[in-house]
Amino acid sequence: MNSVGHFINGRTIASDDRTESVYNPATGEVTKSVSLASIRTVKQAITAAEAAFPAWRDTPPLKRAQVMFRYKQLLEQHADEICGLITDEHGKVLDDAMGELVRGIEVVEYACGAPELLKGEFSKGVGPGIDSWSEFQPLGVVAGITPFNFPVMVPMWMFPLALVCGNTFILKPSERDPSAPMRIAELLHQAGLPEGVFNLVNGDKEAVDCLLTDPRVQAVSFVGSTLVAESIYRTGTAAGKRVQALGGAKNHAVVMPDADLDNVVNALMGAAYGSCGERCMAISVVVCIGDEVADELVAKLADQLLRLKIRPGCESGSEMGPLVTEQHLQKVRSYVNQGVREGAELVVDGRNLQVDGHEKGFFLGGCLFDRVTQTMSIYREEIFGPVLCVVRAESLQQAMTLINDHEYGNGTCIFTRDGEAARYFSDHIRVGMVGVNVPLPVPVAYHSFGGWKRSLFGDLYAYGPDAIRFYTRRKTITQRWPSATLREGSKFSFPTH
Amino acid sequence: MNSVGHFINGRTIASDDRTESVYNPATGEVTKSVSLASIRTVKQAITAAEAAFPAWRDTPPLKRAQVMFRYKQLLEQHADEICGLITDEHGKVLDDAMGELVRGIEVVEYACGAPELLKGEFSKGVGPGIDSWSEFQPLGVVAGITPFNFPVMVPMWMFPLALVCGNTFILKPSERDPSAPMRIAELLHQAGLPEGVFNLVNGDKEAVDCLLTDPRVQAVSFVGSTLVAESIYRTGTAAGKRVQALGGAKNHAVVMPDADLDNVVNALMGAAYGSCGERCMAISVVVCIGDEVADELVAKLADQLLRLKIRPGCESGSEMGPLVTEQHLQKVRSYVNQGVREGAELVVDGRNLQVDGHEKGFFLGGCLFDRVTQTMSIYREEIFGPVLCVVRAESLQQAMTLINDHEYGNGTCIFTRDGEAARYFSDHIRVGMVGVNVPLPVPVAYHSFGGWKRSLFGDLYAYGPDAIRFYTRRKTITQRWPSATLREGSKFSFPTH
Amino acid sequence: MNSVGHFINGRTIASDDRTESVYNPATGEVTKSVSLASIRTVKQAITAAEAAFPAWRDTPPLKRAQVMFRYKQLLEQHADEICGLITDEHGKVLDDAMGELVRGIEVVEYACGAPELLKGEFSKGVGPGIDSWSEFQPLGVVAGITPFNFPVMVPMWMFPLALVCGNTFILKPSERDPSAPMRIAELLHQAGLPEGVFNLVNGDKEAVDCLLTDPRVQAVSFVGSTLVAESIYRTGTAAGKRVQALGGAKNHAVVMPDADLDNVVNALMGAAYGSCGERCMAISVVVCIGDEVADELVAKLADQLLRLKIRPGCESGSEMGPLVTEQHLQKVRSYVNQGVREGAELVVDGRNLQVDGHEKGFFLGGCLFDRVTQTMSIYREEIFGPVLCVVRAESLQQAMTLINDHEYGNGTCIFTRDGEAARYFSDHIRVGMVGVNVPLPVPVAYHSFGGWKRSLFGDLYAYGPDAIRFYTRRKTITQRWPSATLREGSKFSFPTH
Amino acid sequence: MNSVGHFINGRTIASDDRTESVYNPATGEVTKSVSLASIRTVKQAITAAEAAFPAWRDTPPLKRAQVMFRYKQLLEQHADEICGLITDEHGKVLDDAMGELVRGIEVVEYACGAPELLKGEFSKGVGPGIDSWSEFQPLGVVAGITPFNFPVMVPMWMFPLALVCGNTFILKPSERDPSAPMRIAELLHQAGLPEGVFNLVNGDKEAVDCLLTDPRVQAVSFVGSTLVAESIYRTGTAAGKRVQALGGAKNHAVVMPDADLDNVVNALMGAAYGSCGERCMAISVVVCIGDEVADELVAKLADQLLRLKIRPGCESGSEMGPLVTEQHLQKVRSYVNQGVREGAELVVDGRNLQVDGHEKGFFLGGCLFDRVTQTMSIYREEIFGPVLCVVRAESLQQAMTLINDHEYGNGTCIFTRDGEAARYFSDHIRVGMVGVNVPLPVPVAYHSFGGWKRSLFGDLYAYGPDAIRFYTRRKTITQRWPSATLREGSKFSFPTH
Repeated sequence: MNSVGHFINGRTIASDDRTESVYNPATGEVTKSVSLASIRTVKQAITAAEAAFPAWRDTPPLKRAQVMFRYKQLLEQHADEICGLITDEHGKVLDDAMGELVRGIEVVEYACGAPELLKGEFSKGVGPGIDSWSEFQPLGVVAGITPFNFPVMVPMWMFPLALVCGNTFILKPSERDPSAPMRIAELLHQAGLPEGVFNLVNGDKEAVDCLLTDPRVQAVSFVGSTLVAESIYRTGTAAGKRVQALGGAKNHAVVMPDADLDNVVNALMGAAYGSCGERCMAISVVVCIGDEVADELVAKLADQLLRLKIRPGCESGSEMGPLVTEQHLQKVRSYVNQGVREGAELVVDGRNLQVDGHEKGFFLGGCLFDRVTQTMSIYREEIFGPVLCVVRAESLQQAMTLINDHEYGNGTCIFTRDGEAARYFSDHIRVGMVGVNVPLPVPVAYHSFGGWKRSLFGDLYAYGPDAIRFYTRRKTITQRWPSATLREGSKFSFPTH
Repeated sequence: MNSVGHFINGRTIASDDRTESVYNPATGEVTKSVSLASIRTVKQAITAAEAAFPAWRDTPPLKRAQVMFRYKQLLEQHADEICGLITDEHGKVLDDAMGELVRGIEVVEYACGAPELLKGEFSKGVGPGIDSWSEFQPLGVVAGITPFNFPVMVPMWMFPLALVCGNTFILKPSERDPSAPMRIAELLHQAGLPEGVFNLVNGDKEAVDCLLTDPRVQAVSFVGSTLVAESIYRTGTAAGKRVQALGGAKNHAVVMPDADLDNVVNALMGAAYGSCGERCMAISVVVCIGDEVADELVAKLADQLLRLKIRPGCESGSEMGPLVTEQHLQKVRSYVNQGVREGAELVVDGRNLQVDGHEKGFFLGGCLFDRVTQTMSIYREEIFGPVLCVVRAESLQQAMTLINDHEYGNGTCIFTRDGEAARYFSDHIRVGMVGVNVPLPVPVAYHSFGGWKRSLFGDLYAYGPDAIRFYTRRKTITQRWPSATLREGSKFSFPTH
Repeated sequence: MNSVGHFINGRTIASDDRTESVYNPATGEVTKSVSLASIRTVKQAITAAEAAFPAWRDTPPLKRAQVMFRYKQLLEQHADEICGLITDEHGKVLDDAMGELVRGIEVVEYACGAPELLKGEFSKGVGPGIDSWSEFQPLGVVAGITPFNFPVMVPMWMFPLALVCGNTFILKPSERDPSAPMRIAELLHQAGLPEGVFNLVNGDKEAVDCLLTDPRVQAVSFVGSTLVAESIYRTGTAAGKRVQALGGAKNHAVVMPDADLDNVVNALMGAAYGSCGERCMAISVVVCIGDEVADELVAKLADQLLRLKIRPGCESGSEMGPLVTEQHLQKVRSYVNQGVREGAELVVDGRNLQVDGHEKGFFLGGCLFDRVTQTMSIYREEIFGPVLCVVRAESLQQAMTLINDHEYGNGTCIFTRDGEAARYFSDHIRVGMVGVNVPLPVPVAYHSFGGWKRSLFGDLYAYGPDAIRFYTRRKTITQRWPSATLREGSKFSFPTH
Repeated sequence: MNSVGHFINGRTIASDDRTESVYNPATGEVTKSVSLASIRTVKQAITAAEAAFPAWRDTPPLKRAQVMFRYKQLLEQHADEICGLITDEHGKVLDDAMGELVRGIEVVEYACGAPELLKGEFSKGVGPGIDSWSEFQPLGVVAGITPFNFPVMVPMWMFPLALVCGNTFILKPSERDPSAPMRIAELLHQAGLPEGVFNLVNGDKEAVDCLLTDPRVQAVSFVGSTLVAESIYRTGTAAGKRVQALGGAKNHAVVMPDADLDNVVNALMGAAYGSCGERCMAISVVVCIGDEVADELVAKLADQLLRLKIRPGCESGSEMGPLVTEQHLQKVRSYVNQGVREGAELVVDGRNLQVDGHEKGFFLGGCLFDRVTQTMSIYREEIFGPVLCVVRAESLQQAMTLINDHEYGNGTCIFTRDGEAARYFSDHIRVGMVGVNVPLPVPVAYHSFGGWKRSLFGDLYAYGPDAIRFYTRRKTITQRWPSATLREGSKFSFPTH
């Protein structure tokens, strides 16, 4: 059976560390094992990254960007292969894997603009004969810790920008689906990145703790659940590092009475059930303004949901694949049970789904709850599964109060034709990423990704302009030249003719 | 005897909190008392700031900036009065107090540009018919905790920018010299700031802890010593806040063999002994490249130092005043004793200075050490007094290694005529603010202030462009309008002529 | 009788040039005379500006900005006086004069941010050891030629920014209303501007031609009618200068069926009849989508128009004053006659208005045409008077075709609640300044003003970020230091102990 | 014999226009003919570009950038072929052709960042409930007219950026070396650019005049000699277009007494004789500060020049190839004759060079003049050949006066180790591109290229940030939504339970 190791100093490392099983969630079978790095292995990666730093730091940004231009080509050439690896270990359908890869490549494209993005500010004459300017210098060794749900995209939110800024990088991806990250690591070196500049260690809490406390690691980017994000933020900052830690979400869609409900249903089907809802930007709550909207929307959603094609992600035509693990399947199922107990109306029940020929796969049918209320656990907590909750409100203001009171503030959207409602909503909602008739308002690669409230710890967001600032340290130089000795010629004896 | 209270919700508050004495360091006498806020008082300030937030947040930036235009005028009109308060309680000479005030006013001027500084990025066509843009929205209630050494300037690094971004603010200044901060708070309201938008509480650790843990406070800016900065950063981030904590320094000046030593001496006298060395940007170490440079420079410095006029700060012609407190005087004196014990050569000994008519003032003469080495405590630790250490090195590279190995990385400078040496130094030195022939490279108000290594915890710096980012939260809106119903006229029945 | 001369080198100049009468349009009486500069006088101003350039150029931007901070204060202190001068010679009501002044002051406020606005771009490491950065250096002597309709605001679109960029300036304001420009020139020097940095010459074509052809003038900003703008652009560019020439307009408002017509009527009354329509951003055409909208809107507009209070601008409660001159009055009246002849329906006829006690004033009542068509001269040409034309269209697309086909493209607006219609309109309309439910979409001072098509000649707009670029010349420095001679110590013989 | 036609609407066009011969300058033989477009052909290209505009304009910037990513790959794959075409028709050595191509590709790389570069500025709350933002929209059809000396690089200064901004483009390259431009046009379409978006017409003045006067062409970029640039600027602006016209140069290098002369000689050999001096950034004048510098430098230059390997550009090891045409050869030779007549000292005389086996090639040996003075025609005029003039000055100030008094202000450089001299020079020199120890300070692709004085007509420079502004038109939208009808629910009847 295949074993996935680490990638350190330009080479794949098969270590003697502990291992864990990797599953194909569509079959429920173990397909590979993955190494869990010991402290020694992680320190080896840090040492490699530290050694590679001085030369990479001194490489002009234009040259660093060339690696990203080639990397984009290689990723496009190997797209099918990478998507296959994602689907095999994560379970999402191939189209969705391709969507993930494309969004990741867009960050690589943004990183190609490093020379522009790294410009400092130059001020002539801050005083008589004095100039001052800022430079954005790399930090040194930085680390990224990423979740299972986007094994390719989330790492690519981080390392392309960290690298073009002149840092060296250590990626600790999820141990659930390690093959795709490993493949994109190899391609990165094929693109010409010097050895040691990028390193990947697979692992669990032991590896994470080592990255968070080793003083040579200057900064940590994390994406995962809020509880872990908060812990990462505390531990990393207590060790004096800069940390950005992105956590969980409960993203609400508000449907106004003037919305085109057919459009809304199409948008919500993808936003709620795509990738089994295992997305930090998935819509998990719909707030309908008025019962008329709610009644019609629930009916249409139920109708569509019953026709959703749930099959292994690698099968053509499949619209939703399995959940990532057996444990996660049980957790989501127990949320559904709990919702029923708490009195929500389970309009579509996906708990008993059987997928022919894949009885051991981690499948769950799409679930739709109506009449969910603010106190229910299915409303308060992030389920991260194919479960959509409909809440009924009487006004936009009431819907907004609901959203603003929620613990999370990652994404949200409103469906309306009305300019005023959209503007009021996007101005006053306490959420970091807002869609107007856009169900998944993930910012494009040249803007930055981040939520408010307990969805993000730190002050700079992921990718886009913020990432440039996160991965560099400002230096301000103030310069005066003391005297015109040379210029006025007193130092040199010129012919006196 | 006068008592300094708090400033909450537009009114001066005389509370029944504990108090502490305020001294005139030039006479050693107690001149006032200052209230130390109880938790109840601090929470009262937070409540006022929270209540004032919604209306201030919705005030257009152009209007918020108008307050700053008026504030600049008022500060200039009351400059002599403010400087008098600074000198009375801090001890620095009046010129120096004026310098501090002017640098603070420059931040107010920068804040007048709020409408420009708050611009977001607009992207037309991120997809077909889809636009996306970023807004930088205020955080809510934010706090600043500031040190005794710049009772006016350091608070003004913070609140003008926090306010024009739309936040409401709580300042906790130093309890050593509270009168000047209180005066500038009053003027801020005279400039038209609505009640509750800016509040000031005097206090000690009790007040600080309350600000760091109350969940309504969104962000904390701190300037002080490294140990406290580190603790503030840990506590504040553990409470989920964004924190920027600026700490201590040990700023080295490197003197190259081609420097004009007369210029260097003049520059160093001010940079090392100005304000008694009680500045986080003071030069406390000079690294001479070559013994020739060292011998000549030490001789010239000693000569100047013996002629330095040390008198109460309010006296005309005084060049250096007293230290801030008796305890601090004893601490600095013990560092000098320790330096002698460790084998450094005390070229000028200021320990026995008597200032006629001010025998109880907290005066210490300027001290100059030669042949200081890397292991001595006077080299390793921040003294924050009128003590300059000369270190001898054989090459620029050796000097840079020394600087890069030091715990702190706030400021540094090089004296040279040589373009290459200056560029190599400023590129490779691990220090945040670098001067080339500029002894105190404090960035101007439209750049940002911050050190590297253990001189700053956090990722965004004080004032300038970074402050705008620190005091705002990014929001990204992605917008599509669903259909051309209105535009194409299907909704309205037009005459069918 | 008072005579208005020139302002050169810090002094008011009473020259022996030709003169012209200045009228009070509310009484029809001559109140002053204004000098028309000879070539000799203009060249004197250019010489003064050229002489003042080197020192002003070398003044740090922060110091240049201080003049603007003081200027803002002085303008606010003298606001009533300045507005009185405007109304006396232009005729507009005092409130409107104050509006003009406030918009002008906002440009002064923007100019206070010069240090931020003049930042260049710094690129470390464009090659190994090579840095490159851009500076935005002043041009030298630049000139502004401005129209009668905003005697204060339009000059202030130009000189505050030209000056803070380090240029010296010559203003040639309109000879119709010269007193207000002269007053703000005096205040500018009272604010501390050095002599010769700003100069004002009154004059006619002789002065203009001199400014356009003298090789010492580096750039010309012009606002006026399109025919003159085009001629200025040709002549100035043929002389090798950079020129921005803003011309005429025919601004359309589109009213969609979902608009709130009461709001629309209020908005249009000010936009069409404010300042007698003598604004390049005045709405002069309303395009109603559907006859229902048109019928209702015309009825409401007529009703309001009949109640419009037309009196001298200095009288309290006056809503519209006289036109600027007798000739202009006749020209506007002849347009109305022509409209009637061409078949437009004159719903409200203001031609016979008598203003009690001001029978010789240049008054004209507000006129409203319905059923105006594309071929009529009142549609094709800029009238610059209180004449509003209603055009009826069947769809937004038809309205947009009309607007896009028009010669001018200065401003436009749409009234709707519908997000999609607003977005489609603002995206596809070939007009430089677009309002969505904003009838006069004059960009705020921190954005830039300019039209499309024959409303602007040149590529950079007035005020805002574009003005900074227009009034500076880019310089790019690329720097490498050749060898580490000094740094590596080979040049200096160190003691060999 | 091969014939080079046009490239219109995605297809190579073999027209029946007039033709002109294309030479191989190394052999003096005619190798191809090139079509000279008739007005009809040019109008066909304009029509194609106009038709392609609407769809290309509506293509999201991210998609437009994808074409540039693919184009970079194709250019790199076909680099040898393209360089061969350059050398065959221009004569420069292959390495130099490769340098040109690489600099062109860097602009393509910059264009890949279109989504970032096209961001507008968004201002929330310019008034209560009012937002305003700027968009940079494409102009429509734009044209580029380019010179023989960089048949690939100069066109690529223009069209990649014009295209990613959403414009459609017409290139009129030099008729001297048309094959390389034609090849890169084909590759651009192979990269996926839609038909008609980019078009190429070969031609002479007839084609140029048509481009300058056809009203459908919105903007013209030109690089060539100053006399033509001036004429293009006049004609184009008179037709109401925006025009940037880059002209001639006389670039001075200043050698200070502290410069390392061996480095200087190496730098000057390339900068003066590379590509036969047929570069607008070539160094054609060296100003030596002091006779000592001059004597030594002239001796070293002469020594190197005599060893310069002059052979056909396609031969390995060749350092300088032939001039571009027989006429140009005669023109340069006559300048040398004139220099001798005017009294300059011809230290190295290249007039009688014979290149074995290429006796009919357009070769001229490198020429070196000493003791050139300000009044000589070889000093005043641009020779555009392998002729370097040494001028002797007594001080840096004298050298700078010389440079500032010259008609041209394209590039310049200073050789020194002294920070003060470099800063004073770069601050005060009236030249657009300044090198400090960099002989050819051509800005990198992410900065902009342009000279001062009569080296550039217009206000925005070539490529880099300026090009984005030149190829787009600012539009400012100001938006308010009128009422909360929908939001507050008055419009919709909600259930009243």
